Amino acid sequence: MASHTVTTKWKKNLLFKSDNPNGATVLMDTSNENGGNEVGASPKALMLSSLAGCSGLDVVMILDKMKYTSYDLDIKITANLTNEHPKFYDKVHVSYIFYGENLNEDKINKAVALSVEKYCGVMEMFRQFAEVTTNTVFHNK
Amino acid sequence: MASHTVTTKWKKNLLFKSDNPNGATVLMDTSNENGGNEVGASPKALMLSSLAGCSGLDVVMILDKMKYTSYDLDIKITANLTNEHPKFYDKVHVSYIFYGENLNEDKINKAVALSVEKYCGVMEMFRQFAEVTTNTVFHNK
Repeated sequence: MASHTVTTKWKKNLLFKSDNPNGATVLMDTSNENGGNEVGASPKALMLSSLAGCSGLDVVMILDKMKYTSYDLDIKITANLTNEHPKFYDKVHVSYIFYGENLNEDKINKAVALSVEKYCGVMEMFRQFAEVTTNTVFHNK
Repeated sequence: MASHTVTTKWKKNLLFKSDNPNGATVLMDTSNENGGNEVGASPKALMLSSLAGCSGLDVVMILDKMKYTSYDLDIKITANLTNEHPKFYDKVHVSYIFYGENLNEDKINKAVALSVEKYCGVMEMFRQFAEVTTNTVFHNK
């Protein structure tokens, strides 16, 4: 079985530096109003980047296997945060927004569905604590 | 109710760039063996950074309120990944590793417990899909 190890170091004030199995480092911090310097990312919202990146990689890799590459893609995620501690995301909406000429909606819909329903491990984790909804938007040039 | 919105853009090949409510941007990518360039972080392992950052901020802020600041802190997270798609983390261990002279173990244990049991929203989300265990290590100089 595979396992991932990530080490995160406190860099004073409220800044944290986290390594990643890929070799990248990630800075995390909090807002000015909470005493941070806004140098790094908010750790909680980083979960939303994780979800977008995981599903986005699936979609792009699946479309590439389908020999379909002529599009641009944004993924916009909006997540509702509960009011009481511990505050967590209870409703999460993921929009896959495609831009291009004569977008192949069949291929795109198939790729998104494969990620959402089968491959995206981060989305599977999100479904255990949140109501997750998705939609796909086509902006044909 | 608060909500967070994060937009993630595909930057070609397998690179994604994600914004964050704090103003930071995060790059995500995949390994060379999967066709990526290892420029950004692995999206899934980014969840482990999120967990460390969320709980780390709690612990440092709580200790600061207790007027206790003379320590260094690393947070090491090891997570087991399931074998079948969608692959997710089913067992997650979080080690809070403190370094310092004559560490105040009572204050540290109290701060860690408050984060784990009450404040850390990311850990609460993790508990919905994984068995989460924690320990605290003291390296007195």
